[in-house]
Amino acid sequence: MKSWLDNNLKALNLVDTMEQEEGFTRLGYSEEELQSMRVFKELSEELGLYVRKDEAGNLIARWEGKKDLPAVTLGSHVDTVKHGGGYDGVAGVLCALGAIKALKEEAFLPHHPVEVICFASEESSRFGVSTIGSKSMAGIIKVDELADVSDDTGVTVKEAVNSTGLNWERIHEAERDEREIKSFVELHIEQGVVIENAGAQFGVVSAVACPVRLKVKVTGKMGHTGTTPMGRRQDAFVATAPLITYVSEEAEKLSQESEHAIVATASTINLLPNVMTVIPGTVELGIDIRSVDDSLKAKLASAIKEKCKELKEKYHVQMEVQILVNNPSVKLDLNLMDNLKKMGEELGYKGHEMISGAGHDVMNMAKKWPSGLIFIPCKDGLSHHPKEHASLEDLEMGVHLLTAYIKRESAELD
Amino acid sequence: MKSWLDNNLKALNLVDTMEQEEGFTRLGYSEEELQSMRVFKELSEELGLYVRKDEAGNLIARWEGKKDLPAVTLGSHVDTVKHGGGYDGVAGVLCALGAIKALKEEAFLPHHPVEVICFASEESSRFGVSTIGSKSMAGIIKVDELADVSDDTGVTVKEAVNSTGLNWERIHEAERDEREIKSFVELHIEQGVVIENAGAQFGVVSAVACPVRLKVKVTGKMGHTGTTPMGRRQDAFVATAPLITYVSEEAEKLSQESEHAIVATASTINLLPNVMTVIPGTVELGIDIRSVDDSLKAKLASAIKEKCKELKEKYHVQMEVQILVNNPSVKLDLNLMDNLKKMGEELGYKGHEMISGAGHDVMNMAKKWPSGLIFIPCKDGLSHHPKEHASLEDLEMGVHLLTAYIKRESAELD
Repeated sequence: MKSWLDNNLKALNLVDTMEQEEGFTRLGYSEEELQSMRVFKELSEELGLYVRKDEAGNLIARWEGKKDLPAVTLGSHVDTVKHGGGYDGVAGVLCALGAIKALKEEAFLPHHPVEVICFASEESSRFGVSTIGSKSMAGIIKVDELADVSDDTGVTVKEAVNSTGLNWERIHEAERDEREIKSFVELHIEQGVVIENAGAQFGVVSAVACPVRLKVKVTGKMGHTGTTPMGRRQDAFVATAPLITYVSEEAEKLSQESEHAIVATASTINLLPNVMTVIPGTVELGIDIRSVDDSLKAKLASAIKEKCKELKEKYHVQMEVQILVNNPSVKLDLNLMDNLKKMGEELGYKGHEMISGAGHDVMNMAKKWPSGLIFIPCKDGLSHHPKEHASLEDLEMGVHLLTAYIKRESAELD
Repeated sequence: MKSWLDNNLKALNLVDTMEQEEGFTRLGYSEEELQSMRVFKELSEELGLYVRKDEAGNLIARWEGKKDLPAVTLGSHVDTVKHGGGYDGVAGVLCALGAIKALKEEAFLPHHPVEVICFASEESSRFGVSTIGSKSMAGIIKVDELADVSDDTGVTVKEAVNSTGLNWERIHEAERDEREIKSFVELHIEQGVVIENAGAQFGVVSAVACPVRLKVKVTGKMGHTGTTPMGRRQDAFVATAPLITYVSEEAEKLSQESEHAIVATASTINLLPNVMTVIPGTVELGIDIRSVDDSLKAKLASAIKEKCKELKEKYHVQMEVQILVNNPSVKLDLNLMDNLKKMGEELGYKGHEMISGAGHDVMNMAKKWPSGLIFIPCKDGLSHHPKEHASLEDLEMGVHLLTAYIKRESAELD
């Protein structure tokens, strides 16, 4: 199994070695994502699964069961952030296929159909919008809002989707009926160090800390850097700087004071005109805030708004705070979680109950179907980074955990 | 004269009205700069001047004198920053041509030849390198260093120059012999409010405060914004933020303590990867520092280096300070300056002796020939901005000042 995992990890990542200095870049609805999905399709077909593509570009690899029952499903995605790692997403589809392989080898015959789903465009790094594929499947995609959102190069979501041979006007048809699916489990790398710090080997997740995202627009006044005296400036960048510090320090303080953790990051900036001889006239700062405690996110967002009022006065600029995203955190199925933990421990692995700081496809599936999330460790908690790494041992453990899930859920007589 | 100025201001700016919400964008060695230069050539020929283009793309419009003597020269540029104003550069070539028109109308015949020069690529906003045309004419262009410097889109200086029909390998041939030119005077908008604050109508400049420019490269560690606890981050952006504040506050403090003013601006930033879900791993910050007092610039640059050491420790990141540009400030010809002031006052305008916070073509010409710089006011000191504005009255005053200069310098018997 280890060499199968190793070979197909590289195959899904379209590389000969996982040592890639520039990391992996397969943006949603790009040619690179499509290439990796073609590998997923080939692998699935080799395992005897029937693969179809839905109207959102998700691939669904199906193993028919003995009966016409709702499917036991699992899966993740193969797209990445820019210069990201090769495990975020890929680990989930790889281990799911590995579990099918293991079950086929022991001649297991499922009562329920089993499906491995490879979701399209999970990451938000191309369009600022995440999990387009799983939102479509769960029927919560906002087609009208989304169509004209564009990437860095001006390509809209609609254009990108159509460029892969799909028809944007039909993306809502990817929605599946509640009765088609029995349960969904995603396996993902942890992207943190909680499992390791707890002395455990895998994590089972009770809730996903979905983000509040803010865009702060600061408008000052451009001017020549050489001729505008310091005292007469309305420098939008100087006005923004203390906010970057504030976001970081306030999140740390709130975390220490509260029962739940909160993290917040000023992660993007757009400076205009961004030329050496001109005082910055406009700044757009993007802030990402996460906690499973929605009230804590709201508290930080409103503290940031208050801080902006103070900075606006001090630096004689305009500051507008816009809420880009405000997703309530998602509770997963606690019964399924307990079972996943129990099954892992029966296999001899120590499990740890935890929350997820990152959003995953499972948060959309959870809106409609009983859903669970398994974490396997990744080295130093590093993720969205070329050096992201999970060991073959942990991937193999992932296969065992998913095998147990499929066996239990698909064999059960309803 | 006012309607001639008004019409040709618009003609050189390639517009029907100076109200342009997006401002003016004519980058160095672009099609837009060439278009404006074609208007300059037509205007010059209408005035009976003979126009040639040199090997750096500068246009030289010549009025032959009675004798074979060194030329009395004046001029400026027509390129702009991105979304800049329509007066920076254009005012200088327009008033120079206006002065020729005035002198032709009164049938003045110069002893010395008179030349109006329209320099190529004065602004640094395309390539990060300023005054390519006048550096070439003064023989101080660094051909090898410059060839492969590229703009945002990856086009190099060499490619851009060649794309206008010139030959980069011959750009050094634009250098002129010391004996060809008697003196050079540039007229420019002030890009500040010193003239207005002094209760004067025009400025004469004793020195140009050339910049020191730093690039600070901050290297932290990328990570997922949702899963990396606040206490375990090496966020390059958080480490950079206090430096932005420091640059501004320290320049203000040094200005108050010192005899000369100093200005400093964190004007550019490049954040990697600049996506919502990733903690910034790398930041490049560009800092522009100006003063006529070179020791003051050096003092601030080394204070910034010290501050970086402190921030490096505090935020567990790497910080490197690179000096991009370190141009000593340039003294102009004080005799010529006094004469320009006196001539203006004889015409009834109040002059004010001052320094220039911005670099101009004159700083290169001053390395080889006696040179002067005249400032006319611009509204609210606003420059490099769509709302940059100089009144027709002040442009007409500019014509009178330059007329006086040409008369005095070209008529004089050597």
